[in-house]
Amino acid sequence: MNRPFTFINAAISADGKLSTKERRQIRISGDRDFDRMDELRASSDAIMVGIGTVLSDDPSLTVKSEERRNSRKARGLDENPTRIVVDSKARIPLDADIFRKGEGLRIVAVSNAASFDKVQLLRTKATVIMTGEEKVDLVSLMSILQEMGINRLMVEGGATLNWGLVSNGLVDEIYTFVGNIIIGGSNAPSLIDGDGFSETQLQKLELLDSEVIEDGILLRWKIKQ
Amino acid sequence: MNRPFTFINAAISADGKLSTKERRQIRISGDRDFDRMDELRASSDAIMVGIGTVLSDDPSLTVKSEERRNSRKARGLDENPTRIVVDSKARIPLDADIFRKGEGLRIVAVSNAASFDKVQLLRTKATVIMTGEEKVDLVSLMSILQEMGINRLMVEGGATLNWGLVSNGLVDEIYTFVGNIIIGGSNAPSLIDGDGFSETQLQKLELLDSEVIEDGILLRWKIKQ
Repeated sequence: MNRPFTFINAAISADGKLSTKERRQIRISGDRDFDRMDELRASSDAIMVGIGTVLSDDPSLTVKSEERRNSRKARGLDENPTRIVVDSKARIPLDADIFRKGEGLRIVAVSNAASFDKVQLLRTKATVIMTGEEKVDLVSLMSILQEMGINRLMVEGGATLNWGLVSNGLVDEIYTFVGNIIIGGSNAPSLIDGDGFSETQLQKLELLDSEVIEDGILLRWKIKQ
Repeated sequence: MNRPFTFINAAISADGKLSTKERRQIRISGDRDFDRMDELRASSDAIMVGIGTVLSDDPSLTVKSEERRNSRKARGLDENPTRIVVDSKARIPLDADIFRKGEGLRIVAVSNAASFDKVQLLRTKATVIMTGEEKVDLVSLMSILQEMGINRLMVEGGATLNWGLVSNGLVDEIYTFVGNIIIGGSNAPSLIDGDGFSETQLQKLELLDSEVIEDGILLRWKIKQ
């Protein structure tokens, strides 16, 4: 397999939404699930998000636990996994928290449609990978990432990137923490948006495990190849 | 409480969708979950769906098990629970399966915006309840249904009716069978669509129970009042 082992981790509402129609990030999970997510981050070589998530949430994607950061350093790693933003048009602000906070490498994946000047500026903040004409070629990107030594990749959304990866067969597992909340809304982002599958293309899963955590439930799905 | 005990039952994909972007109904659950749904139908006084579900799926909403139908008759009930369609503009075809198949009462709930002529025709097929100006007044409808002796109401979608009921505080419990499939699509209907809640209005739930059934998992949520 010419790509990293890739898993999506997301907290969703009982109706499958990632956030409200206003794209406001909601605290869907509690402290235990947050800690589980931090452990997943610390055990990954890289964390990937889409530009929509950066623009709406401005996450730092750092490992929060000092113990886990120290443990990574003791193993000769950076405190934080490499942080990757898929950003076809190079829209990420130069002062995004992902650049400002925490040690570790950053990668911005852009397409040929990104502005040359903005890409030059981004090179002062991150490694820039350019692939694809109008949109980042995710298959090619994943292959490049593996060549760079990224063998375990955690994806933290959003809905459009999740769709791009799943529809291209680039995901191995999906972990959803289903929280005790309803968000609703035909325009609220859900776990997997984009074009969507038609009836004959649906992606089958296998339920690996389920675990009640605080007020919600964690479901671990394996993507059937 | 001036309304029936009301629960939504739905099969959803792992990403919270009810069907594909083409509104094609997908077999999300297996035989055991189908049987569970049939038992829920048989134990309810009425089954409610929205007009969108009728137009895309044309469901009969009958009890499938002969044993359960006989058991209802032995208790002096109709073979099938009362079937209710929420249909503000009276768009339901007169040859819909809900009218053609199975014994039992039918109710079509319409608003004042429904065509007079169509309503007259519907009265030959069903009891018509008219409430609300442009859209059916769901609060009023639920009160009328209770006065008619409907104490236990099962809602089988779709996404817009689910939203109307939940956002008006008319639902007690939600059962979702989460199937081992990804549908995806920003335009595919999800469990609860409509306008959606804003950050400060989110509906809280309590996870009553979870049970792995065949290749998916059944989640029982209680709506916190």
